[in-house]
Amino acid sequence: MMKNILIVGCGLIGSSILRATLLKKISKNIYVYEKSKKNILIIKKLKTRCKIINRFNNIPNNFDLIILCTPMSQYKDVIKKISKCISNKTIVTDVGSTKESSSKEVANLLNKNKIWIPSHPIAGSEVSGPKYGDKNLFKNKWCVLIKEKNTKKNSLLKLKTFWRKLGSKVITMSTKQHDIVFSMTSHLPHLIAYNLVKTATDFEKQKKYQLIKYSAGGLRDFSRIASSNEIMWRDVFLSNKKNLVNAINLFIKNLNLFKNNIKNRENKKLITKLVNSKKVRKKIIKLKQDVNKPDFGRL
Amino acid sequence: MMKNILIVGCGLIGSSILRATLLKKISKNIYVYEKSKKNILIIKKLKTRCKIINRFNNIPNNFDLIILCTPMSQYKDVIKKISKCISNKTIVTDVGSTKESSSKEVANLLNKNKIWIPSHPIAGSEVSGPKYGDKNLFKNKWCVLIKEKNTKKNSLLKLKTFWRKLGSKVITMSTKQHDIVFSMTSHLPHLIAYNLVKTATDFEKQKKYQLIKYSAGGLRDFSRIASSNEIMWRDVFLSNKKNLVNAINLFIKNLNLFKNNIKNRENKKLITKLVNSKKVRKKIIKLKQDVNKPDFGRL
Repeated sequence: MMKNILIVGCGLIGSSILRATLLKKISKNIYVYEKSKKNILIIKKLKTRCKIINRFNNIPNNFDLIILCTPMSQYKDVIKKISKCISNKTIVTDVGSTKESSSKEVANLLNKNKIWIPSHPIAGSEVSGPKYGDKNLFKNKWCVLIKEKNTKKNSLLKLKTFWRKLGSKVITMSTKQHDIVFSMTSHLPHLIAYNLVKTATDFEKQKKYQLIKYSAGGLRDFSRIASSNEIMWRDVFLSNKKNLVNAINLFIKNLNLFKNNIKNRENKKLITKLVNSKKVRKKIIKLKQDVNKPDFGRL
Repeated sequence: MMKNILIVGCGLIGSSILRATLLKKISKNIYVYEKSKKNILIIKKLKTRCKIINRFNNIPNNFDLIILCTPMSQYKDVIKKISKCISNKTIVTDVGSTKESSSKEVANLLNKNKIWIPSHPIAGSEVSGPKYGDKNLFKNKWCVLIKEKNTKKNSLLKLKTFWRKLGSKVITMSTKQHDIVFSMTSHLPHLIAYNLVKTATDFEKQKKYQLIKYSAGGLRDFSRIASSNEIMWRDVFLSNKKNLVNAINLFIKNLNLFKNNIKNRENKKLITKLVNSKKVRKKIIKLKQDVNKPDFGRL
């Protein structure tokens, strides 16, 4: 059992970690740093035995684990503020959705003898804030830990154990590999969803037809993802620029090919493309990455 | 109560109409035309009092209502086969997802004194076949009926009543308006989903990284839509070519603008776009076009 854990930022992910950590009795003391008065009220209502702080005075300097759960654009400020709480034994981690730039940024701010191992739990949804936190949020979900040449084995093992106790399936990647993989499986889908909703609203204004009213035929699915937290996703898009630009270009290339398939009535090519996508869905279901119910069980 | 109804093609939609029509006691006799032996077996297992036929001999020539539920590419063949069953009092309708070209095609095949009013129930999902049919599929869903200058008021009213009994909210549009509206709310989202899944699989091969395994972060949502029936969607894409090409171009334009926002780190523009999408989601929930649960209630 750990003695002291600090969760910095207690939104959807931070508060889910708080809930799961308490449930699994992972640490004797849990400190939660949160700035928002609204969020603090919600956390207080949970009546957990965590210590809510809004400044970094009079708190331990021997944390076993510090987890950054703020938007990535706040890491710099946060690290400066908490630096005195980080001992040479403290494992510092985060839950950010991109790794290459944020990992370097934090590493540069920390002394070389500090332990910094980024994490990315593949969990969350379109809602944000501690109100929606869930002790089971990480259950059976992937959690990617960043393993670089200089990552200490012992610390990595401790962090793996932590996430596994929360229910995650842990996997390690380099920052580069992580950002490439998730540019395609997560960042591009979000970016496309935002732009599809934008295109529909532009079109609605232009044509003066009511469209949103008839969104049940497909658009509504995209609108869910496109209602995700704007600060978090702005940070993701800006910090994974290189991979995203590449992914967007690849996608536009495919879109133009498909447009030509339609224009030229290329029946066989169209059918092949549509049949192949169906196979991917089957693989996703088999890998338990989605529920095996028509229409996500919404009907 | 009607006397004779004919459902042509008994897949997801046809079998849902069958189930709902029986439940609501809409017609004395229900005839179901189905070619697939596999589907016939499934329909027989339902033990309903419908008459399953696989040819158009020895059946009434005074149907009150005939509903085409086959893929749109089969309408031509079907109309030729059933023409002798269509009296001057029979209302002929369909459930196809595009209207401009299919509506003209059928109208040209029918005598001018026949009654042809296309329908489009905005219901369905990624699964197909009678196995997945549901008597409540149309409940509280939009059903668009096509009203043109020459549409007979009395027949339109009868058809409206039919869909309302099945639980639909009925609205009328012209074929042109219909195809423009659904190019954006349904056809473009499906086309984008197919192409995103294709881009991800192309990328997986190119980079030799496993991607599908990590699809829970966004890609999985698109894969559901992208696993929809290939014949139906090939027909949709080809028959709504003009509007879809326009929609794709508008979407690519927005995608390129967003790419530049990222490249130039245009913080304000990005935040505005992301915040605006969130508003659309709220509108969709308010209009009851989607469930009001985080992550579609999948968590």
